Amino acid sequence: MDHLYEKTMNQQRIFSGKVIDMYVEDVLLPNGETSKREIVKHPGAVAVIAITKENKMVLVRQYRKALERVLVEIPAGKLEKGEAPLETARRELEEETGYVCETMEPLHSFYTSPGFADELVHIFLAKGLTKKSEKQMLDDDEFVDVLEVTLEEALNMVKEKQIYDAKTIYALLYWQLYM
Amino acid sequence: MDHLYEKTMNQQRIFSGKVIDMYVEDVLLPNGETSKREIVKHPGAVAVIAITKENKMVLVRQYRKALERVLVEIPAGKLEKGEAPLETARRELEEETGYVCETMEPLHSFYTSPGFADELVHIFLAKGLTKKSEKQMLDDDEFVDVLEVTLEEALNMVKEKQIYDAKTIYALLYWQLYM
Repeated sequence: MDHLYEKTMNQQRIFSGKVIDMYVEDVLLPNGETSKREIVKHPGAVAVIAITKENKMVLVRQYRKALERVLVEIPAGKLEKGEAPLETARRELEEETGYVCETMEPLHSFYTSPGFADELVHIFLAKGLTKKSEKQMLDDDEFVDVLEVTLEEALNMVKEKQIYDAKTIYALLYWQLYM
Repeated sequence: MDHLYEKTMNQQRIFSGKVIDMYVEDVLLPNGETSKREIVKHPGAVAVIAITKENKMVLVRQYRKALERVLVEIPAGKLEKGEAPLETARRELEEETGYVCETMEPLHSFYTSPGFADELVHIFLAKGLTKKSEKQMLDDDEFVDVLEVTLEEALNMVKEKQIYDAKTIYALLYWQLYM
């Protein structure tokens, strides 16, 4: 057992919702003392780096209620039960943007907020994009604008804090480094 | 008003803790329908890219209860009330690793999980590192190993999923791109 391990002594469920569940756990620390950990459980998500033949990145603009503002992000969505991340990535890209792709390659996965949440985001690279539909197929409570921007335009959106989230900034660094 | 805006019709506090608060909000959607949003409030955090004179990155190894595993991450910590992010960055670097620095430069800030949380992480670059103390000054419930790794070793830790979080993968892309 790792010397940093924290043993769960008790777990209390605080909330169970459609996106997240929340728990408070009593833990036994490595030094024998006890403490409480506040924990959010999330099903995980995918996000897609999609570059068009014109060398533009496909982005989506949506209202983020937790932030009370609009953000511009790479297309993303949470995992549905029993759905493989690769399928979620293809589905979310098509539903949010109308694009389908020839290949969808897994790049990286990362935890977004390991201090309090177990959300794991799987990042995919979509290649060979074709616009299948001008119409989006969104969830009932989902409203999304689609835009396509050059690297220079995207970097300006970072400066202006329109792009302001971890997965999209990762996507821009990846674009600069590898593409 | 942005056409994607969601108006809060009601807010219910589910939980108020030492790290996070949780709310469920009833919102009015752009199409006039209503929906619920599950929202986690977090004070925000800092994280520090610290490269030694030997060109090694300073990393910390700690148990993440939300994931039930140890992760290797760049030094980080949550903002204390009334404390400027720059000060938090200097404090957390010294407390977790024993290093002080000549300059601490803000690089990027990003939301980690905009779908359900308002956590904003401020990334800093520490330059001119000096080891001030071999002793850590950790919180009562904080247990952290310090390690120093080359870029090659860090990239191997990504492959082995020891490094597996957004801010640290961002730090490694930044290291490759700009340093």
